[in-house]
Amino acid sequence: MTVRKISLHPRHTGLAVEPAKRVLLKGQQTKAAIIDAALGLASQIGLEGLSIGALAEITGMSKSGVFAHFGSREELQISVVREYHERFEALVFYPAMQAPRGVPRLQAMFDNWMVQTSAEIDSGCIYISGAVEFDDRSGPVRDALASSVSSWQVAVRRAVELAQAEGQLVREADPMQVAFEIHGLILALHYEARFLKAPGAADRARQGFARIVERYSTPAYRAQISRGHKA
Amino acid sequence: MTVRKISLHPRHTGLAVEPAKRVLLKGQQTKAAIIDAALGLASQIGLEGLSIGALAEITGMSKSGVFAHFGSREELQISVVREYHERFEALVFYPAMQAPRGVPRLQAMFDNWMVQTSAEIDSGCIYISGAVEFDDRSGPVRDALASSVSSWQVAVRRAVELAQAEGQLVREADPMQVAFEIHGLILALHYEARFLKAPGAADRARQGFARIVERYSTPAYRAQISRGHKA
Repeated sequence: MTVRKISLHPRHTGLAVEPAKRVLLKGQQTKAAIIDAALGLASQIGLEGLSIGALAEITGMSKSGVFAHFGSREELQISVVREYHERFEALVFYPAMQAPRGVPRLQAMFDNWMVQTSAEIDSGCIYISGAVEFDDRSGPVRDALASSVSSWQVAVRRAVELAQAEGQLVREADPMQVAFEIHGLILALHYEARFLKAPGAADRARQGFARIVERYSTPAYRAQISRGHKA
Repeated sequence: MTVRKISLHPRHTGLAVEPAKRVLLKGQQTKAAIIDAALGLASQIGLEGLSIGALAEITGMSKSGVFAHFGSREELQISVVREYHERFEALVFYPAMQAPRGVPRLQAMFDNWMVQTSAEIDSGCIYISGAVEFDDRSGPVRDALASSVSSWQVAVRRAVELAQAEGQLVREADPMQVAFEIHGLILALHYEARFLKAPGAADRARQGFARIVERYSTPAYRAQISRGHKA
């Protein structure tokens, strides 16, 4: 509670500034720690399973201490979606941007997404569980989640367009169609590996992706890949 | 409550038999009506959202009246999974069995599944929401759901094998791979149409299926289809 009182009423005079900054920083760290715990919990039991009480228990804080950092349960849920979004970008999107534009970048995006999805076969994934929880509702949590998923889909479609611009994928390929089929592979992997405990699902997702690329590749790109394999 | 008392203690003497049978039948009808309401509710809010209290409210019965038909909430959930399984078979599987074996039957299975999934874009689907609810649990409800989904997947794989036996799909096609990719299209349709409200998702699922068939078709079957289109 000390943290809250001081960060809400920071002292801006003389020597008091430095301690106030330290406390503010501590407040941010505490908030980050709560969001981290909340994301872990939401991955397992869903965004709707989040409660101030459960988080207080996990973090060893008082309920009012947790509540002080979030105006409402909804704000907590949105913070968790934003945190997931940032981690997804950091682990999946940005590293793939290092790959050359075209199919190599699309491949890197898929590969990183596979790593993320494979890790989530044990932990759960809020993009998937959240879609089921919020598919019949409107409101800011649903909107935050849908906006996060959509921005990733836009990035996948953009990667397809760049691969077309590079002359690697045929012009007739509809980026929406390609992104839809790739999304299906990821969803099937999560469903079959996590719920049905089916072995080999990750291999099938990878094979499916390879066939999508193969089907839409231009003759020139096929020849280039073929030369690469022989070299 | 009358229904329960008499069906639990049926009188087996003389003229009392006929009324007892009628009461038993009425008991079965009541149970079926409760399961029907429970399935409707579970589709919308999930199997885990089911409660004896909510069903009592929907059906206008007393809680003890609803409880009399199911020994536990778990038994109620399993009854709902079985009911969904039977309806899925009746609407998707059996009608497709009327189509000639091979690609036409696989196509009919997919088409019926699409009709079912499209209807569930509004109502929700317990194969999908249930997978998220029970993916980190064990127990009889999870097992009933996984067994129901798995039996449908076996049927899809069997249809692929028959299409191979008919010389329509290539021998190299792995039925598990084909079934996985088809499942992905259905999951992506449900996700993108229901959660993201993305227009055109059904068309993309259909196109995806057409491309799977095209990719795995034998030259002989392609030629036959091509002649059919020209005729």
